[in-house]
Amino acid sequence: MPTAAIVGGGVIGSAWASRFLLYGWDVRFYDPAPNAEQVLHAVLGKARRWVPQIVEALPGEGSLTVCSTLSDAVATSDWIQESTPERLEIKHAVLSQIQAACSDAAIVGSSTSGFMPSELQAGSERPEQILVAHPYNPVYLLPIVEVVPSPQVAQDTVDRAEQILSEIGMKPITLKSEIPAHVGDRLLEAVWREALWLIKDGVATTEQIDDIMTHGFGLRWAQKGLFETYRTAGGEAGMKHFLEQFGPCLQWPWTKLTDVPDLDDDLINLIVSQSDAQAAGRSVSELEDERDANLVAILNALRHEDRAAGAFLNQLASVEARQ
Amino acid sequence: MPTAAIVGGGVIGSAWASRFLLYGWDVRFYDPAPNAEQVLHAVLGKARRWVPQIVEALPGEGSLTVCSTLSDAVATSDWIQESTPERLEIKHAVLSQIQAACSDAAIVGSSTSGFMPSELQAGSERPEQILVAHPYNPVYLLPIVEVVPSPQVAQDTVDRAEQILSEIGMKPITLKSEIPAHVGDRLLEAVWREALWLIKDGVATTEQIDDIMTHGFGLRWAQKGLFETYRTAGGEAGMKHFLEQFGPCLQWPWTKLTDVPDLDDDLINLIVSQSDAQAAGRSVSELEDERDANLVAILNALRHEDRAAGAFLNQLASVEARQ
Repeated sequence: MPTAAIVGGGVIGSAWASRFLLYGWDVRFYDPAPNAEQVLHAVLGKARRWVPQIVEALPGEGSLTVCSTLSDAVATSDWIQESTPERLEIKHAVLSQIQAACSDAAIVGSSTSGFMPSELQAGSERPEQILVAHPYNPVYLLPIVEVVPSPQVAQDTVDRAEQILSEIGMKPITLKSEIPAHVGDRLLEAVWREALWLIKDGVATTEQIDDIMTHGFGLRWAQKGLFETYRTAGGEAGMKHFLEQFGPCLQWPWTKLTDVPDLDDDLINLIVSQSDAQAAGRSVSELEDERDANLVAILNALRHEDRAAGAFLNQLASVEARQ
Repeated sequence: MPTAAIVGGGVIGSAWASRFLLYGWDVRFYDPAPNAEQVLHAVLGKARRWVPQIVEALPGEGSLTVCSTLSDAVATSDWIQESTPERLEIKHAVLSQIQAACSDAAIVGSSTSGFMPSELQAGSERPEQILVAHPYNPVYLLPIVEVVPSPQVAQDTVDRAEQILSEIGMKPITLKSEIPAHVGDRLLEAVWREALWLIKDGVATTEQIDDIMTHGFGLRWAQKGLFETYRTAGGEAGMKHFLEQFGPCLQWPWTKLTDVPDLDDDLINLIVSQSDAQAAGRSVSELEDERDANLVAILNALRHEDRAAGAFLNQLASVEARQ
């Protein structure tokens, strides 16, 4: 039975643990925080509720062991997933402890949203076993995982990482080079920065911006990305024609290119009050349930359509479950 | 019977015409381009195929009149939608012709993606009847429409515009102030700029970026926008805590803040070749059909869920169809 070690729980690490368990892996979990087990069981409960609704061919659940030391968690594990706080000195210390106890043959994936693998590897004696495996919340439902190797990671290790991540129902995308924040979070950061300007300048509220996304381009991007959407919109004249037409728009002073909004108390309070109004009394737990029910509905709806997350799931359901 | 004039066809104007027709309005269509009628009928065919799959309560289709002069199209119309090329001198000339022939009581909506209503109104004797009504492609399926009044537009006119747009199955969001490119296209522009850097720097291909969107945050945004997603991710500690944690990220050198990528021939050719590989021989017409089938599947799946485009559609289906 393959074994995954989860080092660092929280919402992300706990969801990794849930994914591995539901796909039949044994999981050894380590997080010294006093409420770590409580969070783990809450997230695992959600994963057990939703994941079987999108994947019929799940194998039997693996066994869960909560470990009292990091070395006990990682010693015999095939995959070790690090999900500690986003501070480089913490990650270096934890990765060092992991590598002191784990097998040379194990793969060490980091959930870091910002650091490059070469930064994580700095000072390591075995940099070749560390790579970024960056997931998106909710990790038990969203298929995407960005795999980022440094030049020190062998292709064979990348291939094995992709294979393992596919086996736990994920869609691994291996980037061609490492950059801070990888790909998805760079795009999110660009949207976030622009959205903060829109709030700060009083152009729209959080609810209006969200409505424009959910009733507009969010529906596009659930099934075709930026480039295929524009290819489609460009019509029979083709992508080259579209780009030649669209290019000049970048010269327009549309976005607040050169400045970062100051997220000061005034702006924080404005966003908080608008977000409170938008939530209209719904708790975070209710919002999570809405989100997960919506995701399950969308994924199932897309299952038999082309070229989207659902098509991937459809393919997944037809793969023999790992035993 | 209410009447809409469509001035300027193409993919956008033709889809506006289709929406009005399918929701029971009479439509008077004007576009002097030789292939305008052909495009109109192609788009109308698509709308007739897909829209009844998401809205059961459609009234009988209105009547379509293709007019040979602009004044004939607009003279007796209640709503006039201008969808001419994105050049201010063209829009000024067309709006002037429209206002010379239309009723004072009509609303003149512009599909402009970039210009502010005050720019469109400049030089007009009746600026108070011109506002931006900016839709998103495919206009016959995506519910969103950004309504942007200038200070010269009375609240009563905005109210009537929202009412009419709701009657043709749209979700109008009226911005609190006018800015170039409104809200949605500013967010799209931010993503587009960052994506061009990712391609240019060789970090990922068009297909990889699209996969990261469709298997990741695109699925989020089809049902919860940026702010509600982060509120949910922030957990019980709340939005304020989340913002205070997240704020510092903006100080990181994650995005190419201060520069616009040069969309030169090399970058255009790189995107075109990657996009061609990604399409794998599928024609634009096939891509459109995939897109529309996916959108219909998602919208129907979301119908009975909360707080998303589907919930809006659900509400729409329960409203008495306009007769």
